[in-house]
Amino acid sequence: MTTAGQVIRCKAAVAWESGKPLSIEEVEVAPPQKNEVRIKILFTSLCHTDVYFWDAKGQNPMFPRILGHEAGGIVESVGEGVTDLEPGDHVLPIFTGECKECAHCLSEESNMCDLLRINTDRGGMIHDGKSRFSINGKPIYHFLGTSTFSEYTVVHVGQVAKINPEAPLDKVCVLSCGMSTGFGATVNVAKPKKGQSVAIFGLGAVGLAAAEGARVSGASRIIGVDLNPSRFEQAKKFGVTEFVNPKDHDKPVQEVIVEMTGGGVDRSVECTGSIQAMISAFECVHDGWGVAVLVGVPNKDDAFKTHPVNLLNERTLKGTFFGNYKPRTDIPAVVEKYMNKELELDKFITHSVPFSEINKAFELMLAGEGLRFATEGSSFFIQTCVVLLFLTLVCAAANRSSNRS
Amino acid sequence: MTTAGQVIRCKAAVAWESGKPLSIEEVEVAPPQKNEVRIKILFTSLCHTDVYFWDAKGQNPMFPRILGHEAGGIVESVGEGVTDLEPGDHVLPIFTGECKECAHCLSEESNMCDLLRINTDRGGMIHDGKSRFSINGKPIYHFLGTSTFSEYTVVHVGQVAKINPEAPLDKVCVLSCGMSTGFGATVNVAKPKKGQSVAIFGLGAVGLAAAEGARVSGASRIIGVDLNPSRFEQAKKFGVTEFVNPKDHDKPVQEVIVEMTGGGVDRSVECTGSIQAMISAFECVHDGWGVAVLVGVPNKDDAFKTHPVNLLNERTLKGTFFGNYKPRTDIPAVVEKYMNKELELDKFITHSVPFSEINKAFELMLAGEGLRFATEGSSFFIQTCVVLLFLTLVCAAANRSSNRS
Ligand SMILES: [Zn+2]
Ligand SMILES: [Zn+2]
Ligand SMILES: [Zn+2]
Ligand SMILES: [Zn+2]
Repeated sequence: MTTAGQVIRCKAAVAWESGKPLSIEEVEVAPPQKNEVRIKILFTSLCHTDVYFWDAKGQNPMFPRILGHEAGGIVESVGEGVTDLEPGDHVLPIFTGECKECAHCLSEESNMCDLLRINTDRGGMIHDGKSRFSINGKPIYHFLGTSTFSEYTVVHVGQVAKINPEAPLDKVCVLSCGMSTGFGATVNVAKPKKGQSVAIFGLGAVGLAAAEGARVSGASRIIGVDLNPSRFEQAKKFGVTEFVNPKDHDKPVQEVIVEMTGGGVDRSVECTGSIQAMISAFECVHDGWGVAVLVGVPNKDDAFKTHPVNLLNERTLKGTFFGNYKPRTDIPAVVEKYMNKELELDKFITHSVPFSEINKAFELMLAGEGLRFATEGSSFFIQTCVVLLFLTLVCAAANRSSNRS
Repeated sequence: MTTAGQVIRCKAAVAWESGKPLSIEEVEVAPPQKNEVRIKILFTSLCHTDVYFWDAKGQNPMFPRILGHEAGGIVESVGEGVTDLEPGDHVLPIFTGECKECAHCLSEESNMCDLLRINTDRGGMIHDGKSRFSINGKPIYHFLGTSTFSEYTVVHVGQVAKINPEAPLDKVCVLSCGMSTGFGATVNVAKPKKGQSVAIFGLGAVGLAAAEGARVSGASRIIGVDLNPSRFEQAKKFGVTEFVNPKDHDKPVQEVIVEMTGGGVDRSVECTGSIQAMISAFECVHDGWGVAVLVGVPNKDDAFKTHPVNLLNERTLKGTFFGNYKPRTDIPAVVEKYMNKELELDKFITHSVPFSEINKAFELMLAGEGLRFATEGSSFFIQTCVVLLFLTLVCAAANRSSNRS
């Protein structure tokens, strides 16, 4: 008995209003249309970006919506024109895509696909602008093209990475977003050489993933910078060797780091989005060869300002998006790094709750937020994407046998 | 009959006061001390930096001084500890050095030697702080450690590139400064791929050298940006295919370039030092893969400002100094590129005058400056280093037989 071509009824966590608990509802999931894939989600994690769009402060609210964008699942069926995926394939849906046809996809140097670049304002599918989710015929908006807080979801084929079926989806699902963002920022963009020093600004999940990238690269010193000293103990597990709390110093943190390192670190990775941290991350790298990589997303009104001599002295400033990974081309190889034990993922997963208790996940995330309120009065650290939690879709997993694989 | 170990009396062009014509004088040139080399200068070119320090506006004046830093010559004698150069070697003195021992020299990525990095305030030699030039025993200051407006000069061995003795010194002398600065900015730092587009801001000698780098790299479009349209005709010889005069447009030049290229150029090289041009050069590169390289030296009080989203969209901003070339290690290979006809130099040489007429060279340079006055009222284009002229040291050449080679 196949579900292909039919509407699937399943459970999803629907956000009806900004800031209100999600509601587990029975939803209808329409069959995938042209260039779309319907995926049975087995595991999803919760990222700060979900909370940000659930909270919807200062945004055009788009509700009801099914959030979620870090997940692992199995292809249930594919729409017209999908040739490189088939039912049973193990996949990670990704919040940004790769059409393989635009100038960015054809460039070796970019992953910012013109067609499928992250779009937080889109609530329907690209093909027809419509939603594939409904409740009693009333549409529910998509989120980032992924909407993984549902037992089944429909995703554009360009946003689906096909991975090794042996890979444990309950672990590698975190590679859909923050983990790849931070790890790739270091290994693909900052590219520290063995023995070099790396400063990481912000020790949330993305920053810790950046530290993991520095550890894997053989960095000799990994200097963690955060306003919250409670993060330092945990960060040691991620290879961070030294800590600087800007609050402990009268001078700018970049000067502290330059003194600690006799001229500056070889590489820095900024994962907070604070404009001041961005400037510090740039100014703390060594002249002659230092590379600063910006990951965190700043406020719209911020301006990056520095004295131009900092640029002329052969420092490099680079931005990155999703760790410069092309979702379909590159992410399968990152999964292999985990399988080969080059890359550790388990330590990034702090909690696991059943899907039915997803609101508990939000509470735990917000309690984590609470810790950050200790830094109130400073705009220095704002996490953009934190993997805090891990949700098991118990019902979905129980239905697993209905798939071909 | 050797001159080694003896004071040499020869002609030099001495700047006695700021802004006053140079005076050809007989000077005494002391023998080279530890780690120093005495060089017979055969050819020198005039660079805007010479004029800037001769004019000495807003500077701590340092006179009397022997200017000059782009030159070719032959080693006359070497001081204690100099093992890799000997009398008769053909050399280019360089305004910035390479000690081969500091962290920068040991790094593959930097050419900003801690010991011998450009120092415009130093008037003596590093060894003892004293000058090797005098007139009747009264010392004359050095300039950039090179002071090539003299038939003989003394230079730290770390500032001397030993080159192919077959190379014509009257051509390759321009590789001592601006030509390498611009060419290296493109080929070593911007690194355009074959078929990519490159925008060059500022079409003075450094910008034209950057264009030459783009031509040699196989760029498909080379877009020249300058406020002075009289430069466009000449720039065609240097491979520039299109021109943009910011004055011809109501919108910022970066927007014009983004429209011309359907999203931005692949690479840009900023050779003016105007902070506004630096910002435009950064903002005109394509998201996803664009690289902007800053060559021009800005004013001390300028601040580089941009919206951080420009950084996050995977653009790269890099500064460069002397085209990222290590003077001793890399410049000999650039000379070989000229010998192999990969790199054209002759087109950069616009005038040739005998050394005795050096003030005519200054006048021609200042007349070139006059052209730039057409852009008065805008601070957009300030050339940092322009090779305009070419001086033959007739007297020195006549003495050539006194050298071993
Ligand atoms: Zn694409
Ligand atoms: Zn995320
Ligand atoms: Zn050095
Ligand atoms: Zn120069």
